[in-house]
Amino acid sequence: MLRLGHRPAHDRRISTHLCLTARAFGADRIVFPSVDSSLEATVDDIRERFGGGFSLEEDPEWRPLIREHEGPSIHLTMYGQRHTDALAEIDAGDGMLVIVGAEKVPADVYDLATHNVAVGNQPHSEIAALSTTLLDVLGPDELYAERADAEIVIEPSDRGKDVREVDRGG
Amino acid sequence: MLRLGHRPAHDRRISTHLCLTARAFGADRIVFPSVDSSLEATVDDIRERFGGGFSLEEDPEWRPLIREHEGPSIHLTMYGQRHTDALAEIDAGDGMLVIVGAEKVPADVYDLATHNVAVGNQPHSEIAALSTTLLDVLGPDELYAERADAEIVIEPSDRGKDVREVDRGG
Repeated sequence: MLRLGHRPAHDRRISTHLCLTARAFGADRIVFPSVDSSLEATVDDIRERFGGGFSLEEDPEWRPLIREHEGPSIHLTMYGQRHTDALAEIDAGDGMLVIVGAEKVPADVYDLATHNVAVGNQPHSEIAALSTTLLDVLGPDELYAERADAEIVIEPSDRGKDVREVDRGG
Repeated sequence: MLRLGHRPAHDRRISTHLCLTARAFGADRIVFPSVDSSLEATVDDIRERFGGGFSLEEDPEWRPLIREHEGPSIHLTMYGQRHTDALAEIDAGDGMLVIVGAEKVPADVYDLATHNVAVGNQPHSEIAALSTTLLDVLGPDELYAERADAEIVIEPSDRGKDVREVDRGG
């Protein structure tokens, strides 16, 4: 997925939640036009402990990134089409790019994206919109998939915390 | 829903997203043990412009609130049962209370709640967990329901912004 408009101090916690959400719901990577080193450290730490291959990448050339993407590119906006209509035609196998802006998004993003999608035409949390979109297209299995090289695995539990530390040998 | 552990400066943007998400996905109200006036102003402003009856309330007695709640009380935590198992038994008509903590949640919340539910047993965004839970139990219709007394209605659009201002007479 592509995160636009991140301002390091102001948006750090929201962008952290976007990273956690993208990773948990099954995205492979998140791209920022400019990487925030504090955010990068958080993502590295979580990958180290909880496993999997999720990565945070920097690419200032985000317009070509959208333009050259071969699968559907989905810009999440409260002004878009209803997600229940728009996402029905998306196939996860096509390699989806999800674009999440901050408060102001350059106007041409609406034309660069193949789809403009709203999760509710109401004032929006981009985190809620992202999770809904990924869950809709990828399904819930990604949320519970085993992650390669995890040091910590949390087992589902009705009461309390069931945390398993994995001996990785070596 | 009930929001625990909100710290006014540190958590304001996350709690704002929780309020937007709760409102957009069809919750009636959000309760904080202690109300943050800046958050209250944001919620009032959105209700004024976009309509509906969503409210932010203060109730320091949050343990009795959970204990005396007659329907299911669902504590969202990365340590909980898989949401795909736990939410299947929840009926929206029973009046669900969703409990969302910040980083540290008092241990007795795990016992007070009727259900401890994880949306993925991975490091968590409580905003993504809340939206997934509300969508699972309430369905997508709430997201697109007409809101009473809206001054602004956003129409779904494939390109650009289609905003309708409602003449409320008077």
